Amino acid sequence: MSSVPSALPFDDIRDLVARMPGSDAAAVAAVRARDGQLTKPPGSLGRLETLTEWVAAWSGRAQPRIQRPVVCVFAGNHGVTDRGVSAFPREVTRQMVENFAAGGAAINQLCLAFDFGLKVLDLALDHPTPDIVVADAFDEVACAATMAFGMEAVAGGIDLLMIGEMGIGNTTVAAAIYHALYGGRPEDWVGRGTGVDDDGFRRKCDVVGAAVDRIGSARTNPLEVLRRIGGREFAAMAGAIIAARHERIPVIVDGYVAGAAAAVVHAMAPGAIDHVEIAHVSAEGGHAEAVRRMGKAAILDLGMRLGEGSGAALAGAVVKAAVATHAGMATFGQAGVAEKER
Amino acid sequence: MSSVPSALPFDDIRDLVARMPGSDAAAVAAVRARDGQLTKPPGSLGRLETLTEWVAAWSGRAQPRIQRPVVCVFAGNHGVTDRGVSAFPREVTRQMVENFAAGGAAINQLCLAFDFGLKVLDLALDHPTPDIVVADAFDEVACAATMAFGMEAVAGGIDLLMIGEMGIGNTTVAAAIYHALYGGRPEDWVGRGTGVDDDGFRRKCDVVGAAVDRIGSARTNPLEVLRRIGGREFAAMAGAIIAARHERIPVIVDGYVAGAAAAVVHAMAPGAIDHVEIAHVSAEGGHAEAVRRMGKAAILDLGMRLGEGSGAALAGAVVKAAVATHAGMATFGQAGVAEKER
Repeated sequence: MSSVPSALPFDDIRDLVARMPGSDAAAVAAVRARDGQLTKPPGSLGRLETLTEWVAAWSGRAQPRIQRPVVCVFAGNHGVTDRGVSAFPREVTRQMVENFAAGGAAINQLCLAFDFGLKVLDLALDHPTPDIVVADAFDEVACAATMAFGMEAVAGGIDLLMIGEMGIGNTTVAAAIYHALYGGRPEDWVGRGTGVDDDGFRRKCDVVGAAVDRIGSARTNPLEVLRRIGGREFAAMAGAIIAARHERIPVIVDGYVAGAAAAVVHAMAPGAIDHVEIAHVSAEGGHAEAVRRMGKAAILDLGMRLGEGSGAALAGAVVKAAVATHAGMATFGQAGVAEKER
Repeated sequence: MSSVPSALPFDDIRDLVARMPGSDAAAVAAVRARDGQLTKPPGSLGRLETLTEWVAAWSGRAQPRIQRPVVCVFAGNHGVTDRGVSAFPREVTRQMVENFAAGGAAINQLCLAFDFGLKVLDLALDHPTPDIVVADAFDEVACAATMAFGMEAVAGGIDLLMIGEMGIGNTTVAAAIYHALYGGRPEDWVGRGTGVDDDGFRRKCDVVGAAVDRIGSARTNPLEVLRRIGGREFAAMAGAIIAARHERIPVIVDGYVAGAAAAVVHAMAPGAIDHVEIAHVSAEGGHAEAVRRMGKAAILDLGMRLGEGSGAALAGAVVKAAVATHAGMATFGQAGVAEKER
């Protein structure tokens, strides 16, 4: 992964997307051949089988293994919280980052339960991005630099990357990204986040509509959507998704907010998130439709809407178990089990 | 748990169902009170929160813990396999039991992945139950004795019981149970099992229709359905479900086949499976509707149709993680995180 130069950074990022490696068909074929010999009816493990093929396809490993699964949580702050779009004060972003460090959050417990690594990357929390109703979140250099920061996060031998986030106000930013990319009305994409009331919901819709209206025709340019109405954690997550493809790391993105970063990359090139699975359908409004727009089927649907990568960790546990099952099962020949008769 | 006496055994089993303990409202209230203090928006963990409450309700523990989760796989053989209803020969049931013992099956790998105990209980595999098209599966004493065997399986300090099965031909038996209990046409409940072709599917439907027609009005009596058109693993699973309630052990039943045992208990008394969660929606035909008839919402939907408790293990991992998350998270006070503003 070359570092992003200071000149024309978005062109460089577009180039990284254009040069993404494809899937490893030979690895998939090897997994399918072995799967057909395992002591079970063909196809009977359903999604576990296709998830194992997916890991093979994007890791390029004919004998896939998950030995270093890591949850990366990207945290950012947003000027738009001044507009009363969240039920929690902005300070909670930093407080939760400290809670992650102390081991007290839900994602800490989930990573402990499944023996996953956890990296928390806080992004200039004392410098919230400007209010996207009236100003762009970044200039191009800053946006590309934040994407590059996200790209660096995937180093260290990670072989399954689970992406989550923390950021008071970021469901509003995610809704703006979905609305910009997918059209419709603001209320098609806005949810109640961490728990706003009816007035708060109305404010969120107004903010989302105003932010997207402000950028006009720029909504057809995914990197401009990210730059103008996104935020730091979104840029970093998009960078991590792009870098993971080049590093041959399968990616599971969490839910509603992390999904908006995946949607930006998908809008750059539909195949650019073929190495990405969506962890779960969030209870946050509009997410099921966003998943459909990305051409994906979420792994889980547990009515969750926390963020932090909590859904990604649960889906990652399914993926890890799927790969371990494929690797560890006996074949019909090894076990002396008769194969299908007819 | 008292042992089942030889006289009037079904009356004794009905009595066990009638005397089932209720849920522990105080334990649920304690879990809800703690949940409201944890560093996350209220409700944001969705199903994880309600699953933790469910464990508290049926374990009676205000501070629920999952420390001894066990998958029990009940294996039986069925005379109806002589009618060509399965793609695999009957010998595969024993071969797979040996595969479980050797650690080569999918369920072995899933139990390893999640650190679950595994008990395999084979039920007179050399003596298949008679062909249910022409004869009852058991007499009452044998059926009740097999249920009692299943009841014994839940001993040993298990605190989360995951129930699965293995038995060539048992999707046909499960379909007959669902058709008897829920009516409709055989094809509403019959699936392709481990992979029969169109002719095999037609044969399964004919067998299911003939078996249910044979018992006539007995289909309104759940224990008679179990005795006349069931099988050994179904009786043992029903026994385990009933015993677990008395032993205050929450139960996760796997999919289509194990679900038919739960359906028998549910038909005896709707509240009799309130301590039971359905692991996943099987890809086997009719299962989604059977889950609905039981008033349940499955935890997972991964297109699986293997049996062995494979779906139950995955759902059990979600439950165990949910309980651990509740137990281990910090409160707002402990973490110094500000609570919701409005």
